[in-house]
Amino acid sequence: MNENIRFLNKFANHLADEARKISMSYFKKKIKIHNKNKKYFDPVTDADIGIQKKINTLINKQFPNHSILGEEDSIIKSSEYEWCVDPIDGTKSYIQGVPLWGTLISLSKNNEIILGIADIPALDERYIGHSKLSYKVIKNNKTILRVKKNKKLSESILNTTSPYVFDNKSDQKSFEKLSKKVKSTRLGGDCYSYCLLADGLIDIVVESGLKPWDIRALVPIINNAGGIISTWESKSVSDGGRIIAATNKELFKKSQKILKAKKPSS
Amino acid sequence: MNENIRFLNKFANHLADEARKISMSYFKKKIKIHNKNKKYFDPVTDADIGIQKKINTLINKQFPNHSILGEEDSIIKSSEYEWCVDPIDGTKSYIQGVPLWGTLISLSKNNEIILGIADIPALDERYIGHSKLSYKVIKNNKTILRVKKNKKLSESILNTTSPYVFDNKSDQKSFEKLSKKVKSTRLGGDCYSYCLLADGLIDIVVESGLKPWDIRALVPIINNAGGIISTWESKSVSDGGRIIAATNKELFKKSQKILKAKKPSS
Repeated sequence: MNENIRFLNKFANHLADEARKISMSYFKKKIKIHNKNKKYFDPVTDADIGIQKKINTLINKQFPNHSILGEEDSIIKSSEYEWCVDPIDGTKSYIQGVPLWGTLISLSKNNEIILGIADIPALDERYIGHSKLSYKVIKNNKTILRVKKNKKLSESILNTTSPYVFDNKSDQKSFEKLSKKVKSTRLGGDCYSYCLLADGLIDIVVESGLKPWDIRALVPIINNAGGIISTWESKSVSDGGRIIAATNKELFKKSQKILKAKKPSS
Repeated sequence: MNENIRFLNKFANHLADEARKISMSYFKKKIKIHNKNKKYFDPVTDADIGIQKKINTLINKQFPNHSILGEEDSIIKSSEYEWCVDPIDGTKSYIQGVPLWGTLISLSKNNEIILGIADIPALDERYIGHSKLSYKVIKNNKTILRVKKNKKLSESILNTTSPYVFDNKSDQKSFEKLSKKVKSTRLGGDCYSYCLLADGLIDIVVESGLKPWDIRALVPIINNAGGIISTWESKSVSDGGRIIAATNKELFKKSQKILKAKKPSS
């Protein structure tokens, strides 16, 4: 098994390398942007589609029996192994030239996430979690990730990408309530916020309305760094939904209590 | 005069180089954070204070008659020249390990901003505006900056750092109204958003409650790239306030109309 995860990790890193070539070739350049949704702007670029295609082809060739759940294309099979891919998490950042977007790749075995990679190409940073380990790789230097120790909400740094893209107004109001209890709130960041949490720089990330590919890869990165990640309802985040990531159980519970408190009548 | 601005620009770049040494030596490391405000969290770090001190000393030595208006310390003199310095614009990003913060340095002559530098150390990018020129320097490569050509609000990308730090609820609501008219809104970014606007990547930046040091350096960068920057009231941004930066007059006026429309009674 140890040999096996080592091979799988090497392969997943190869996928991230290949994805990086495609994403960086379009970044900050003129790129065609399509809209996936009729109701609101949900951008997808040729980079997203190209990366998904490349990754699916590589997985299919190496592991023809494995299932793939991807934001842009899936190949669902009956298999104990399922890859989950977000070619570009943070497409809005990507098309704006903000370097905080990432490629997310994870592998589940019998529904347990055994490997996660969050690659941040424009910063040349890669965050990896597997086998009880969580580390970042920057210019070939590996550093172990460890969460912060603070347990006070009033001393915490909170992050979310945008309360405006939350599932509903009620979730947004809950976030704003929590935001008033913490020391500092910063908006923007997508998958990078979870990496910063694992790296001991922030305390809490809260989101609402996530998809499986937005979050699965980040689970082993956060858990193995000593953090905790779950839904607002204390369920597995594998299907996405409303997420709380925190550096410890105390902060998780305190945040959850505020987020789930009955909303004001207004 | 041309010789003079060349020398002043060289000197301002030297200030940015010296600031970079200090900011990068603390970035993503344990750093003491102080709170400047009793009512809310307005962080200042040893890096902010160290940079202000260093820059003020260097200016004072080279130009003992020049005035300095700085976020952390000012030396006000009766002079036709005034430097304006934000040691770290985006201190919340800085303490979270998000690389979008910058050092802002500008020089005004008789109240006209003749030179502006926005240095983004963690991305190794520098944006400069003076003498009708606007350019970025990345790894010693100079590239001229030019804004996008789009004039449709419905095709625009809008950015602000955080509607939660706007001057008041009414300004926040105005922003949210504008946000519904554009193609895409991204939060977070501080000074970097204005650089992206000058670089042709986004269309509009709106903020409220800015100070002079948050915005002066960005004026020549945006204007010389073909953009427009003014307050919601069409006044000079030199004293800060409520800001609209846009790639052209049409987008500016359309944004201004929505931001200044009578707010709903709710």
